[in-house]
Amino acid sequence: MLKSVKEKIILGIDPGTNYMGYGVLKVEGTKASIVCMGVIDLHKEKDTYKKLGYIFERVWSIIETYLPDEMAIEAPFFGKNVQSMLKLGRAQGVAIAAAVHHSVPITEYAPTKIKMALTGNGSAAKEQVSGMLQRILQISEQDMQTHLDATDALAAAYCHYLQMGRPTSDSTAKSWADYVKKNPSKITKRKTE
Amino acid sequence: MLKSVKEKIILGIDPGTNYMGYGVLKVEGTKASIVCMGVIDLHKEKDTYKKLGYIFERVWSIIETYLPDEMAIEAPFFGKNVQSMLKLGRAQGVAIAAAVHHSVPITEYAPTKIKMALTGNGSAAKEQVSGMLQRILQISEQDMQTHLDATDALAAAYCHYLQMGRPTSDSTAKSWADYVKKNPSKITKRKTE
Repeated sequence: MLKSVKEKIILGIDPGTNYMGYGVLKVEGTKASIVCMGVIDLHKEKDTYKKLGYIFERVWSIIETYLPDEMAIEAPFFGKNVQSMLKLGRAQGVAIAAAVHHSVPITEYAPTKIKMALTGNGSAAKEQVSGMLQRILQISEQDMQTHLDATDALAAAYCHYLQMGRPTSDSTAKSWADYVKKNPSKITKRKTE
Repeated sequence: MLKSVKEKIILGIDPGTNYMGYGVLKVEGTKASIVCMGVIDLHKEKDTYKKLGYIFERVWSIIETYLPDEMAIEAPFFGKNVQSMLKLGRAQGVAIAAAVHHSVPITEYAPTKIKMALTGNGSAAKEQVSGMLQRILQISEQDMQTHLDATDALAAAYCHYLQMGRPTSDSTAKSWADYVKKNPSKITKRKTE
């Protein structure tokens, strides 16, 4: 993919051993827009190493296609048993390996942090996060991937975009949605630029 | 590395986030010998992704140097908390990614299984495993890496060598050491071949 020098690409990943979601966000100036989103469906593959191999090769190929400047991972840290954490760690590990090999910096976000940043509610339903993303990024019905692992991955990328330094002028805003609500004038200004 | 067609190379890995051990074994006919063993020391590196990056790049380079036909991993499945299992999973994941990318088949062995195969005792001390390896593989004092993550990795490779189909003639043998003890005539025959 050809990138303009002013452009920044953020890859969001939601790694899992059954479905691995990804979402690619383009940031131009202060505006974020979606490039693509999708899911690697691994639930029918029984072989652990083939699963991990697919994740690795796919993340590798997404990185070589979209040349992300940053990668954001949705990373739960608690609430699972040791077996599922080991599996999750492996899935994260292969995705991280692909990013590290391409020198893509990685930032992790807890699911509650992502939900909070997008909806103002750390325990929002995944569907709410998905709906909010569709509205903020103005994704059409046909382009919207409704698989919740894909929207979670895009949400991780969007959360990272918010954390990259904007909005900083209004420290009382709890989330980007909140900020938009509180600062309609700024949004209008951007739209007419 | 140039390999003879009759030769088989087994890479053993003991992945950890502070030390990652590796050991390379060469199998010619029925005889196994050590190629190398070592440790990637990561305990001073604080950055998680750099740690994982080092593991990935090092396993990658070991694979490209020694061209293993198989990889054996020491893989504990129980007895740790979720946090350490996630970390362990990530370390395993990056090592697995390097192997999968080079189409190296992977087999996992529980620590007790490795200890059992080498010493006949599933709860043997690491030092016993190390001592047994040094004797069986006739490793000189100066070539012997005494770091227990390195010997654990080599032990995983050796366990895989035993599991590859030998010895099968004596089903009462609990381990290779046991087999050697019970079948001195066969050993002599091999030595004089």
